[in-house]
Amino acid sequence: MQTRRLFLISALAALSCSNAQTGGLALNEDNSHFFSTRAGRRLTAADVDAWADQYAGTQVRELIMSPNSMRTSYASKVWDPIWHGYDPDGPDDQPLLRSTPPESRAAARKWIHTAWQLDQDGIDVYARWIARVRKHGMSPWLSMRMNDVHNTDDERSYIHGEYWRAHPELRRVPYRFAGLTDRAFDYARPEVREHNMKLVRELAERYDFDGLELDWMRFGYHFRPGHESEGIAILTEFTANVRAVLDRWERKRGHKIRLGARVPSRPQTALGLGFDPVTWARRRLIDLLVVTPFWATVETDMPIELWKELLAGSNVVLAAGLEVLLRSYPDFRPLQMNSIETVRGAASAMLDRGADRVYLFNYMDSDTAMADLENYPRLLREAGRLDTMDGKPRRHVLTYADTWAPGEPRATPLPANCRPDEWQGFRIHTGPKPVAGRVEARIGLEGAGESEIGSWELRVNGELCSLRGPVTGVKPGPASGLFAFDVPLAAMNRGYNLIEIRPRHTGKVVWAEFAVLP
Amino acid sequence: MQTRRLFLISALAALSCSNAQTGGLALNEDNSHFFSTRAGRRLTAADVDAWADQYAGTQVRELIMSPNSMRTSYASKVWDPIWHGYDPDGPDDQPLLRSTPPESRAAARKWIHTAWQLDQDGIDVYARWIARVRKHGMSPWLSMRMNDVHNTDDERSYIHGEYWRAHPELRRVPYRFAGLTDRAFDYARPEVREHNMKLVRELAERYDFDGLELDWMRFGYHFRPGHESEGIAILTEFTANVRAVLDRWERKRGHKIRLGARVPSRPQTALGLGFDPVTWARRRLIDLLVVTPFWATVETDMPIELWKELLAGSNVVLAAGLEVLLRSYPDFRPLQMNSIETVRGAASAMLDRGADRVYLFNYMDSDTAMADLENYPRLLREAGRLDTMDGKPRRHVLTYADTWAPGEPRATPLPANCRPDEWQGFRIHTGPKPVAGRVEARIGLEGAGESEIGSWELRVNGELCSLRGPVTGVKPGPASGLFAFDVPLAAMNRGYNLIEIRPRHTGKVVWAEFAVLP
Repeated sequence: MQTRRLFLISALAALSCSNAQTGGLALNEDNSHFFSTRAGRRLTAADVDAWADQYAGTQVRELIMSPNSMRTSYASKVWDPIWHGYDPDGPDDQPLLRSTPPESRAAARKWIHTAWQLDQDGIDVYARWIARVRKHGMSPWLSMRMNDVHNTDDERSYIHGEYWRAHPELRRVPYRFAGLTDRAFDYARPEVREHNMKLVRELAERYDFDGLELDWMRFGYHFRPGHESEGIAILTEFTANVRAVLDRWERKRGHKIRLGARVPSRPQTALGLGFDPVTWARRRLIDLLVVTPFWATVETDMPIELWKELLAGSNVVLAAGLEVLLRSYPDFRPLQMNSIETVRGAASAMLDRGADRVYLFNYMDSDTAMADLENYPRLLREAGRLDTMDGKPRRHVLTYADTWAPGEPRATPLPANCRPDEWQGFRIHTGPKPVAGRVEARIGLEGAGESEIGSWELRVNGELCSLRGPVTGVKPGPASGLFAFDVPLAAMNRGYNLIEIRPRHTGKVVWAEFAVLP
Repeated sequence: MQTRRLFLISALAALSCSNAQTGGLALNEDNSHFFSTRAGRRLTAADVDAWADQYAGTQVRELIMSPNSMRTSYASKVWDPIWHGYDPDGPDDQPLLRSTPPESRAAARKWIHTAWQLDQDGIDVYARWIARVRKHGMSPWLSMRMNDVHNTDDERSYIHGEYWRAHPELRRVPYRFAGLTDRAFDYARPEVREHNMKLVRELAERYDFDGLELDWMRFGYHFRPGHESEGIAILTEFTANVRAVLDRWERKRGHKIRLGARVPSRPQTALGLGFDPVTWARRRLIDLLVVTPFWATVETDMPIELWKELLAGSNVVLAAGLEVLLRSYPDFRPLQMNSIETVRGAASAMLDRGADRVYLFNYMDSDTAMADLENYPRLLREAGRLDTMDGKPRRHVLTYADTWAPGEPRATPLPANCRPDEWQGFRIHTGPKPVAGRVEARIGLEGAGESEIGSWELRVNGELCSLRGPVTGVKPGPASGLFAFDVPLAAMNRGYNLIEIRPRHTGKVVWAEFAVLP
């Protein structure tokens, strides 16, 4: 009896250990990067495997591979493969590529040609990756982009599926073209759902993955403007139907098959776009929820604690999605990528707020990649856990949310106009309380220089801070006009920290951050 | 056995009926209105009772009376009564009133004098009201304002408690005075909490109420800027301590005593200001949660469904707080109050989103009151239930949220600059789907007239709408430049409806609404 009880306890402990949700990375590999960056030679199965091998022994727990945009990067029988209409012996201006600007044709062709060649040689990239990832002790997932609208400003682009081209009446906005998403499919149409369910069924049949992610954030807009609330029931039913497909394959494959979803970062925006992940969780339809911006910037203030409260009582793994770009406001220039220091900042805030995973999107091994790619191996070994980031320099940069429901009022903290003697504040979540080293509050200014900012008052959580001086060469960051203030270490909180400034002149704040420099 | 089971079922049905939370009004009477509006004669007990009587037979379920700002309107032994330092025979410029601008002295004196006279005559207003309200079958509550900072730009104002005047070191912002709330008490200080607990204890001992509301939204800011996250545990502990006081009095009085709280309208803003009502609910500390703007405008888009999800599993009654002012944006002029039509709009949206109560603040019987006060009796008989508003004209006006945590980015949809051929959208929640009559989408414009707007494209949920013409004399509303478009009835949704415009000229949208005109 005693033995049996001990056995039970240790079995439960093992179970609880294998269920441990906290910490680690999930990493998304898109549907073109591998093919276009490995182009120019005949790839072998070993070349394919090598891609997966680089993630072995890192903090990556789920390696999440996307096989599609509007076409597939494998030989789909239900959608068009990316090489549909491609003549491998034809010129760069062959019909498939003719509408593509000449300077972009070569890159497009690399993707197409490599995928075609691998298929010709009987190498199924995703099947190999799934096996290889599993062999390395990571969990292989596929990520299906649910409504990808790259290049929809060009109806003839090589990237489009013929079904989309043939059915303009199934698009969400018939009365204008003000942005790529206006030509996204309208999921209120049963034909659109069936078109996508076909690919779900094929993926589940063809590939033995641990989980399937529905990537609703490529590109986030799935209903006619003003019809998003009708969409809520539609997407919940769609999700339940995908779950039912996976249920059948679970029985056949003899292992659990998980379902995930990528949705906007804030619950009300998600609902406003037709997503109800809280209901998906309460109905046990999903196992993984990724909250994320779309693309324009990493979003450093996602309300993770609110999502945790909403998901309380479910077993859903909550992942904080980090994009690779970093902008402080929508029109910020130049275009910059995150560095290991800004990722440490965002990731440590997200983990401290309760995220179960840090999810990296567009953090690939070349081309679409972090600014300081030489730090990629470190990133993969650090950014998933607080203890592996502890004591290392991190930067917490104020950014904004890039995705809003139609007509939803938008909040963007920067740029902020300064008027003499008018106080204003910027709030930044900096994760765990800094306990050693030093902290700088950094403000990027246009229209005011060092001689002026020296007379301004800057406080952090009410404590007066003194100007340290200009900071140069910080990337990502503004090209000029960045100033650092020394923050007394004891003034820093765990969580939110507030920078308040009392300007003495007019000017414009275009950047704000805390740099934690142990 | 069968009989017993039937009894059990009917007992459960009765219980579920008595627990029915849905619908009805809660109404807040402030701490000065009654005294100043009934001034000029010697009030009797019957005059006091008459105030409560007007709410009998209406939809008001909780009548919530506030006895305090920094002083009390009754003879407190632990705080200063409003007549502390008052000489009933002295002139208007006596010391207590000397710092008050001459044009405001008479009004202040009315409040002070009437409260003093009633006390002199042994009439305890709140005790009488509680008894009278209960006799009428309504539930009597008191509402304690937790940090009222009226007139803090004048240290010597009659309205301040001596404790506040004597303890500037207990205020939340020592380094500036940029607004009244900078001189609010800092609840991180134990002395401040004890000062307030004294009044809680006195109220619970002195008055036999059904419930006590902690009004944290007068004025909403209770911690040093940047110290709000430390405040979360502090206010939760404070709330638990109040609950413990009420527990003791429940046993003595032999009936349930409920606890309520008023907090900002959005969960993240509430957390950002130190409020964690979800924890209060899960720990069963509170029975009533009022989500509300501060004062500047009724907030027509509070995320009620999000609060309901967060409160799921608790028995907390969720009330949607409506303020009496209506502005479309912070600088909107002139100052206007809601009318019965705009209240119907806001209330029907809130109830349709799942609010258990419509809570009226500053909707009193005179002076501080709705625009069309002749409709007050109708308001009290209509605005608490969808069925009593059904089929009556209602206006859904786009407003904004007036309360944000320090440094939190603010979203305000208006004013919106128009640029030729740039689409923009405004989303308004209109509650139940209109099924009869007609609907107008109304746009208020500056810088463009009828001849111009006639060439613009306006769509509601994608459906093209035609210009009906200018609308004049609509109150509340812009003084000029308001235009109506006819919306096909079938185009309207339950819930959010989206107005999209394609301007042909520059201009500025300063107002947007749906008028549902059965």
